[in-house]
Amino acid sequence: MIERRSPIPVSQAIQYVMDQIKPLPIEKTNLSKANGRILREPIVASHAVPPFNRSAYDGYAIRSKDTKGASVHHPISFRVIGEIGAGTVPNVPVGKHEAYRIMTGAILPEQADAIVMLEKTTKMIDGFKLQEPLQAGDHVSFKGEDAERGEVLIKSGTKIHPGTIALLATFGYAEVDVSTKPVVGLLATGTELLDVTEQLQLGKIRNSNGPMVQAQLNRLGIECHYYGVMSDNLQKCTEVMAQALQETDILITTGGVSVGDYDYLPAIYDRLGAEVLFDKVMMRPGSVTTVATKGDKLLFGLSGNPSACFTGFELFTRPAILTMMGSNEPYLPSIEAQLGEDFIKKNPFTRFIRGVWEMTEQGVVAKPAGFNKSNAVSSIARGNCLIVLPSGSSGYEKGMRVGILLLGMEQGEAVWRL
Amino acid sequence: MIERRSPIPVSQAIQYVMDQIKPLPIEKTNLSKANGRILREPIVASHAVPPFNRSAYDGYAIRSKDTKGASVHHPISFRVIGEIGAGTVPNVPVGKHEAYRIMTGAILPEQADAIVMLEKTTKMIDGFKLQEPLQAGDHVSFKGEDAERGEVLIKSGTKIHPGTIALLATFGYAEVDVSTKPVVGLLATGTELLDVTEQLQLGKIRNSNGPMVQAQLNRLGIECHYYGVMSDNLQKCTEVMAQALQETDILITTGGVSVGDYDYLPAIYDRLGAEVLFDKVMMRPGSVTTVATKGDKLLFGLSGNPSACFTGFELFTRPAILTMMGSNEPYLPSIEAQLGEDFIKKNPFTRFIRGVWEMTEQGVVAKPAGFNKSNAVSSIARGNCLIVLPSGSSGYEKGMRVGILLLGMEQGEAVWRL
Repeated sequence: MIERRSPIPVSQAIQYVMDQIKPLPIEKTNLSKANGRILREPIVASHAVPPFNRSAYDGYAIRSKDTKGASVHHPISFRVIGEIGAGTVPNVPVGKHEAYRIMTGAILPEQADAIVMLEKTTKMIDGFKLQEPLQAGDHVSFKGEDAERGEVLIKSGTKIHPGTIALLATFGYAEVDVSTKPVVGLLATGTELLDVTEQLQLGKIRNSNGPMVQAQLNRLGIECHYYGVMSDNLQKCTEVMAQALQETDILITTGGVSVGDYDYLPAIYDRLGAEVLFDKVMMRPGSVTTVATKGDKLLFGLSGNPSACFTGFELFTRPAILTMMGSNEPYLPSIEAQLGEDFIKKNPFTRFIRGVWEMTEQGVVAKPAGFNKSNAVSSIARGNCLIVLPSGSSGYEKGMRVGILLLGMEQGEAVWRL
Repeated sequence: MIERRSPIPVSQAIQYVMDQIKPLPIEKTNLSKANGRILREPIVASHAVPPFNRSAYDGYAIRSKDTKGASVHHPISFRVIGEIGAGTVPNVPVGKHEAYRIMTGAILPEQADAIVMLEKTTKMIDGFKLQEPLQAGDHVSFKGEDAERGEVLIKSGTKIHPGTIALLATFGYAEVDVSTKPVVGLLATGTELLDVTEQLQLGKIRNSNGPMVQAQLNRLGIECHYYGVMSDNLQKCTEVMAQALQETDILITTGGVSVGDYDYLPAIYDRLGAEVLFDKVMMRPGSVTTVATKGDKLLFGLSGNPSACFTGFELFTRPAILTMMGSNEPYLPSIEAQLGEDFIKKNPFTRFIRGVWEMTEQGVVAKPAGFNKSNAVSSIARGNCLIVLPSGSSGYEKGMRVGILLLGMEQGEAVWRL
């Protein structure tokens, strides 16, 4: 008996997965370990930035009104009454034709409203001469001009990067609320699979999906619980997966999702009492990608073909994991590019082709990364993007505008658009 | 006395740094820990891919010549003589009008040269009927069509990502040659600096550069030896830096590089016998960025202003570290974008503005991330790129084409172009 499955569009499949997501709990982490985590509280300015009026340059703090009429022919003299380094606080206000020597970042003394840059002055014994007038505010960074106290600067759900770390440090977030990470299990299935350490045998191939998916998880900062490789054995696979479901939030398998006699995933899901959200998607590679739920757990049945497995992870598993962690930009970022080569195969389903993009004189150009059957492992290694060729066309020609999904980026997008 | 420095162009400053770089030693790492490392050997196909002729679909393996003349009105019958699952090897060749039931990825039996897809057949008691002819090679993945044995697939100097991991696993690289990582030291200087755990005090700010640069290093997979915060004290800073130079390959400092009376870095470099490569770059922010060498060690004197510090790291320190590790794409990747807002300040030096890029109906648009003085910490947190505005213009208008440097990406560029 041949099973006939009903394929659904990629965007609908993504939505089916997203509808199942429940956010993971929040935990506190030390600032020094927060890079790459998902923020689960907003960053609020705990004080104005700058926290006081400060000098933007090395120079002299003066009253601008004392510079009125200064020119080459009528230089005005100032007497230096003290020095303010960054981090020190002056205790006497500036008077008429008085100045403080002041360093970048230092607090302005009382009455001062402008900074004379050092290189605009002519030194004298107890001060300097100035040959041009200043306006109030010249070279001053004013209290609160960057941020007001209480202002929400960064939203919850943002991925923490080095710039975020700087902001958290500024406002004294020694600890910060982030999402806990999901426990993700991974099992590679297939009688044909050898371990990376094994000698090649006729009819067999080494398991590349297991290490690859581990690295895809690692790229998201997620450790995985690796259940290794299993032969196509219905009973044993069911037992391992039943156990794995006890121990994980998400269980990823590779292989076993097609319609071959040894593709046991459908039967295993059935025995486990898992509810299949979809088992056929209008995409190539990866049309047999299957996603199921069992209670709060998500089961991703990725294809055994390396490129299909890779694509299934990036399109479905990645945004699911990021959304569980509270990310508000869970999708791969995309840009428009010029297709760098003809791609004239028929497109009954949307194609996601491993590609290489680069900036050229003609703008961003993306080319297929090489051999493009779904089993082509070398094109995954060469690619830095997925070229998206929507279905319904008889082929795409060099120079056409296409969308590409960028891989290996810190940022993401809030909505799925392609 | 006011020191007058001679500013040099950004590209020249980068070249000065790059000219000093010596590659770090190679080490072996386990495949499971290789993601994100820099490959220091090429990936060579240790066998053909596929390693044997295999079935691309679930179906039947047959001799194409036996299908000649098959049609709806003249179906041809085949007798099934066995079954080949992926990973198993058939021991009897296919004869005339014989077939093996075969699964995706399984090896073709002798004499077979085509695969009939399961859904194209009508089942009979001991076999199936076929209503259309096949060509030799239909639905077969041929040995070596993806890669020939001995082919160099990925060059040394490539950053390892999940696709690379898949390729390494395929060819049995249980261990792989990667670069060792540099030992990087970091010292934040400034009397005005408080620790993130401290209460704010008048005239002072919390140290954001230290945690930020640690995160920038972390983004490259580098741990840092953090020497903490020091006041502007010439003698003590010199001692700490002399010690740090014994313990590190690269020593990063923040602050102390301007021309203020407490900017001791030039004096410290002098006392340490370090040779200054440059101390003024034609860029904003970060014009005072200073790079020096002491023997084989590199010293990066980044500005104390957060945005300048951030930019100095990304433009100079990042490519230096990647090149030391053997990367052949050490520079930030760049694309062209439309400027999303006017930026009408004069541009005596090239500006690197923290920006946010996004894909729009009009293509990629990049806007300044907010307040753009070099001390504006919140714009670093909001930004995902650096907008590059070359010098020599009196201002840039909305809609103009500009280059942007993408932040937080796995990939890089081989040459500095902007």
